[in-house]
Amino acid sequence: MTKQARSLLTRESILRSAGAVFSENGYSATMLSDIVAAAGVTQGSLYFHFASKHALASEVIVRQHASAIEVMESVPPGTPGLEAVVRLSVAIARQIVSDPIVRGGMRLSTDSSREFPEVSSKPYQDWIDACEHQLLRAVEDGDVAADRDIRTLGRFVMSSFTGVQVVSQALDNWNDLIPRVADMWEIILPEMLVPSRRSQAPALLALVTPAD
Amino acid sequence: MTKQARSLLTRESILRSAGAVFSENGYSATMLSDIVAAAGVTQGSLYFHFASKHALASEVIVRQHASAIEVMESVPPGTPGLEAVVRLSVAIARQIVSDPIVRGGMRLSTDSSREFPEVSSKPYQDWIDACEHQLLRAVEDGDVAADRDIRTLGRFVMSSFTGVQVVSQALDNWNDLIPRVADMWEIILPEMLVPSRRSQAPALLALVTPAD
Repeated sequence: MTKQARSLLTRESILRSAGAVFSENGYSATMLSDIVAAAGVTQGSLYFHFASKHALASEVIVRQHASAIEVMESVPPGTPGLEAVVRLSVAIARQIVSDPIVRGGMRLSTDSSREFPEVSSKPYQDWIDACEHQLLRAVEDGDVAADRDIRTLGRFVMSSFTGVQVVSQALDNWNDLIPRVADMWEIILPEMLVPSRRSQAPALLALVTPAD
Repeated sequence: MTKQARSLLTRESILRSAGAVFSENGYSATMLSDIVAAAGVTQGSLYFHFASKHALASEVIVRQHASAIEVMESVPPGTPGLEAVVRLSVAIARQIVSDPIVRGGMRLSTDSSREFPEVSSKPYQDWIDACEHQLLRAVEDGDVAADRDIRTLGRFVMSSFTGVQVVSQALDNWNDLIPRVADMWEIILPEMLVPSRRSQAPALLALVTPAD
């Protein structure tokens, strides 16, 4: 391995450890020495890559945003709107479960409005907009009734997902996040579909918990 | 006013200011000098009432728990189960909007699991249990179908409320919390009622947004 490749691996390892430590303790209570210990690097190595705790946290947030955009772009253009919303929720849930940088970025975005004012509310608004966009498409698809208040429905779907995620973190450190997201869709999805399309619900729910 | 009454008022004023500052900045980023400034008291006066930041935060949490129990007991014993769940959600939302100690306690409970490990997940579990209890009564009342998974439904209702609250805080500093809770019930309540009881939905929704 070249020196450059090793350096990139170290940087990645520091970021993953930082995500894990920030997501557990929040910004203010985290000390750089916690991250040094978790990453198994020297303090000098950490400072070579990141000038300060703030710089490190900012990079975690930037990376989480990049992951969110990746998720938004992971849905193929022709996907029906309601399927797209379900797929988005599953893709985010999987990232939260598998990627400590995403967990760290989420916690930093919501908890540290004083240190990172530029990121405290934007992710919520972006996700509400994405939900609304797909639900408007679902109306065009004929899956959701045209007389519904789609902005309100989009905000509610996003808020519900947020709450399911917050409670899963508090009670089970996100281990049960995917099944709880499946519960959420099982409760609200049939009601979102117009009666003549309700037979599609099982196929949509299967996107969350694929049969093995 | 007696010296004792003045002392109690000062203590209350410190607690309210502490709630406001903790809810805005979290535990670690809060300095006692912020609370001294917000309460308009002297540092000596604050230390007369509370020995440390941890003691002050613990009292905020204790007071928030007392408020939560007050809410749970505010529903008269004979209230139908589904009405009780709606009334509970409105009572908590009103407390969040009006009481900085409740807001501070909520933030401390969820954000500071390291400093207050004893309170980090218990409130969620208590509220899920309270929801489940009332929804089981709603099944007995004939309002909710007997074949539903009530534990899952109770956890979802509590999680949804939590998310609505978190997003309202992020986007509007809780100013729109009551109308967003009304949106939540408007979306999920009709689906929770058995078809023959759906005509009750408007009366239940009116509990959230009473007509003037």
